[in-house]
Amino acid sequence: MNVDYFMNEAIVEANKALAFNEIPVGAVIVDNNTEKIISRNYNQMNRLNNAIRHCEIDIIFDTCKKLNQKYLEDTTIFVTLEPCSMCASAISKAHIHSLYYGAFDEKNGGIENIRITFERKNIFTPNIYGGIMEDKCKKLLKNFFKSMR
Amino acid sequence: MNVDYFMNEAIVEANKALAFNEIPVGAVIVDNNTEKIISRNYNQMNRLNNAIRHCEIDIIFDTCKKLNQKYLEDTTIFVTLEPCSMCASAISKAHIHSLYYGAFDEKNGGIENIRITFERKNIFTPNIYGGIMEDKCKKLLKNFFKSMR
Repeated sequence: MNVDYFMNEAIVEANKALAFNEIPVGAVIVDNNTEKIISRNYNQMNRLNNAIRHCEIDIIFDTCKKLNQKYLEDTTIFVTLEPCSMCASAISKAHIHSLYYGAFDEKNGGIENIRITFERKNIFTPNIYGGIMEDKCKKLLKNFFKSMR
Repeated sequence: MNVDYFMNEAIVEANKALAFNEIPVGAVIVDNNTEKIISRNYNQMNRLNNAIRHCEIDIIFDTCKKLNQKYLEDTTIFVTLEPCSMCASAISKAHIHSLYYGAFDEKNGGIENIRITFERKNIFTPNIYGGIMEDKCKKLLKNFFKSMR
């Protein structure tokens, strides 16, 4: 799987969020067999006026609907930012096979906590790869928060 | 606030899930000022074919929409079962003021993990009260899983 290509597509989505003055986070979900993008989404928390509409939640909703599947076993998610604990847990609950994320989120990142919980409780854990195109993903967020000040 | 009254209303919702042969979990969200129910919901994961449509996620979506609010500070959520880590985190992210839940979920409950994470990271933590009408809530689930065997 061309990891950089798909992370770039997630960055394209993050830039759409930026255009709406939203925190620039974007995601794509890819079919593991065809290696085609099934769904794409970006953070619209303010526009949709809902604090839990992180792009991971929205893209899982979309993909289940599109595929008419309760679980997304044969898919991979690419997100520009490390998922929070809600989204990390959602990715696990949806049985998404692999997760690639860009920038690390030292404050709100949920991966490490979730990994510990999952290992302890023997819950579905996706393959997880962080720091993909980290600089590009990080810069996007950094510039956004700088412009907010 | 009449805790037992509202938990009973959440149980009414859980029974609706049961009628659809879904895991019987129900929830209501109450306005802290008027003490009236804003939204009610029950687990429809199978019917809606989406592994992350726990009733807490759905009811937060509904309530943000109804109130046209990104955050739900002045509300209380009643759930018949201890929220999983995804939902516990969603409840925190939505800034729901208080959470009352019925049965404890020893396997998938997310409250303790989330509490530890939140305390460590200084993230919004609702007031949390577990074991409300525990026996009634527990029996509902126990009977359901017994009937599944």
